[in-house]
Amino acid sequence: INDGSSLENLQVVADPSLENRDLTFGSAVEVQGKLVKSPHKMQNMELKAETIRVVGPCDIWSFPLKMKERHPLEYVRQFPHLRCRNNTLGSLLRIRSEATAAIHSFFQDNGYVHIHTPIITSNDCEGAGDLFQIEVKKTHFFNVPAFLTVSGQLHLEVMSGAFTHVFTFGPTFRAENSQSRRHLAEFYMVEAELSFTESLQDIMQVMEDLFKTATSTVLSKCPRDVELFHKYMAPAQKDRLEQMLKNKFVTISYSEAVEILKRASQTFTFKPEWGCDLQTEHEKYLVKHCGEVPVFVINYPYDLKPFYMRDNEDGPQHTVAAVDLLVPGVGELCGGSLREERLPFLESRLQRLGLTDAYQWYLDLRKFGSVPHGGFGMGFERYLQYILGVDNIKDVIPFPRFSHSCLL
Amino acid sequence: INDGSSLENLQVVADPSLENRDLTFGSAVEVQGKLVKSPHKMQNMELKAETIRVVGPCDIWSFPLKMKERHPLEYVRQFPHLRCRNNTLGSLLRIRSEATAAIHSFFQDNGYVHIHTPIITSNDCEGAGDLFQIEVKKTHFFNVPAFLTVSGQLHLEVMSGAFTHVFTFGPTFRAENSQSRRHLAEFYMVEAELSFTESLQDIMQVMEDLFKTATSTVLSKCPRDVELFHKYMAPAQKDRLEQMLKNKFVTISYSEAVEILKRASQTFTFKPEWGCDLQTEHEKYLVKHCGEVPVFVINYPYDLKPFYMRDNEDGPQHTVAAVDLLVPGVGELCGGSLREERLPFLESRLQRLGLTDAYQWYLDLRKFGSVPHGGFGMGFERYLQYILGVDNIKDVIPFPRFSHSCLL
Repeated sequence: INDGSSLENLQVVADPSLENRDLTFGSAVEVQGKLVKSPHKMQNMELKAETIRVVGPCDIWSFPLKMKERHPLEYVRQFPHLRCRNNTLGSLLRIRSEATAAIHSFFQDNGYVHIHTPIITSNDCEGAGDLFQIEVKKTHFFNVPAFLTVSGQLHLEVMSGAFTHVFTFGPTFRAENSQSRRHLAEFYMVEAELSFTESLQDIMQVMEDLFKTATSTVLSKCPRDVELFHKYMAPAQKDRLEQMLKNKFVTISYSEAVEILKRASQTFTFKPEWGCDLQTEHEKYLVKHCGEVPVFVINYPYDLKPFYMRDNEDGPQHTVAAVDLLVPGVGELCGGSLREERLPFLESRLQRLGLTDAYQWYLDLRKFGSVPHGGFGMGFERYLQYILGVDNIKDVIPFPRFSHSCLL
Repeated sequence: INDGSSLENLQVVADPSLENRDLTFGSAVEVQGKLVKSPHKMQNMELKAETIRVVGPCDIWSFPLKMKERHPLEYVRQFPHLRCRNNTLGSLLRIRSEATAAIHSFFQDNGYVHIHTPIITSNDCEGAGDLFQIEVKKTHFFNVPAFLTVSGQLHLEVMSGAFTHVFTFGPTFRAENSQSRRHLAEFYMVEAELSFTESLQDIMQVMEDLFKTATSTVLSKCPRDVELFHKYMAPAQKDRLEQMLKNKFVTISYSEAVEILKRASQTFTFKPEWGCDLQTEHEKYLVKHCGEVPVFVINYPYDLKPFYMRDNEDGPQHTVAAVDLLVPGVGELCGGSLREERLPFLESRLQRLGLTDAYQWYLDLRKFGSVPHGGFGMGFERYLQYILGVDNIKDVIPFPRFSHSCLL
């Protein structure tokens, strides 16, 4: 029997007289008896049953999970209402719960104020496209078009005007028509914003600290559950993680990254060129080139990045103070930047985009006691994928939503 | 100066030579100097400035917050991007952050697994009506109609099949066209589900424990911030809360409640009658009748409640094992029930509603190892309104969303 508190079952030893035809795999039972030392090596204790009551029987013929079978993740994914009773998903969800708590603790211990940034928003943020619009029987309930948030950043920037450090940890949305193993329509993001920060390195330090602290906590709090993944899905991941927790993350600039890619003997589908986005194949190569460790790439081309990123005022290759954290297997795990806190810079960029009116409130933040600040976001599902070595993002969230699928 | 970590300012004492015309209320400054014992009674320490740098000036003529003015909450509500820099909202948001942490801790300390229940759902749950539908350029992105969740309950019930105790704490939505001081279109709900629970009292005990533990934590962690509310907005609330934390909550049945209302000397707009919903005026009277304390009302009429609530099989006044927690000033704070775990009961109710096909997965949960279980939800904003004595729900959430309003 198992109560869901760990991967370990409690062995019940019962007299044949207690047998019951309803006592099948998957049924819910109440057992009374004596907890005794077990003669078996595999377990410390066992329960010598005195009474066994079947609380809820289970029709094993139609129950899609079978006893002692290792079901592939693709198989159990078909049963979103039952797969949590599978060992792997059970472990995953316990780890997810601990990781959530560890992330909250990290920020609380460091004096961050937790902000519930809104889900429904009239902003389309960075013009990220791919927004879900919401409707009430074809009327504009809010008078204005309203969307599901793609990021809490702008709202956290509001709050960073009142509190030195703030964070949010909630659902975000993309209406991308993607069937990739790294994308969901609904996913969780951890975001932080820091006031009085003039260096991108300060932001990167928080990203690295968050990653290492949360990961250490998860490894120490759920050793058995994590072991299940490292043993059966990603045998090399355990050593890699331990190495990684000891070493400092690597940092290269975007310009260096392009040089590395140009020198590569490998031929890419997309030719690396200064001014172009890094593609998945490029990110993979860079991570491999650096020794399969997390890599910060900093200072991206000005023209590639959204209006709120801080102008580095360099040239001729004009960049902004942006950073992406790339990790083996998963690609982009975090993204961050210093924000443009200087009113004239921000004004001219918004004007060029024709967004001055829509972002008047955002400009206000620079008019009334503006401070240098910056922040970042980390995709929570990708984080879980990375530390556990889970190939498909649909297997690290309780109820995955993606294009053509919204079960339950 | 104030860094947002508390209500208390740090007094800076500066030589007139350091004066600067940019040094206005609302500006961001960097001050270097010596921290010395203050000669004033109101503060322990003060900062003797050696240098003052204005990091971000503030145009006081257009800045809507004025120095040393106590702005009404209605006034600052107009400036969602600036109101967090007002004392009252600052205190509120620090309290909200601590209350969030306290609620997470309560569940973690009691062995609950935290589940991120989905925001987008193809269920319309209890047929609650008033759902937000989501769209991507008029196409069905998910192939099926998809809505914003009104409750994580059904998804938590899935999880209670794998873990003994689970909880969620996230945004929920109602497309109600209400301008009330107790309703929002987007609000946060704490929900818990407990397996192997056969008594409504067990659920009520968790509700009461959660309320008392979270409140004690908030009172001890944010004494100054809480004091601001208790002093200026709800002078009697401090004593009431302290009393309440000491005493057991009152419990009455719905039938008793109707009897009390019928005996009342007060005339109600809605005549109290067994089988009819309790109206706000009724709830108010009941709470007053019981001495302005939190009151559990249990065992509601079968015909008033959704299909998943457990049939009490009583009669002739047929009830279900449901509970509402009513509190002074706010009304309904929590709602919960035992869930119908018996397949034949649930089947016949879903059939009568024509919902058998839509809820096949929910029936499955009763086919494969069903257990007696139950749970509840608590409205987080109403909780904050109640403990702080805040009249309008729009003032206890960072970015309020309600009909005709979605600012930022």
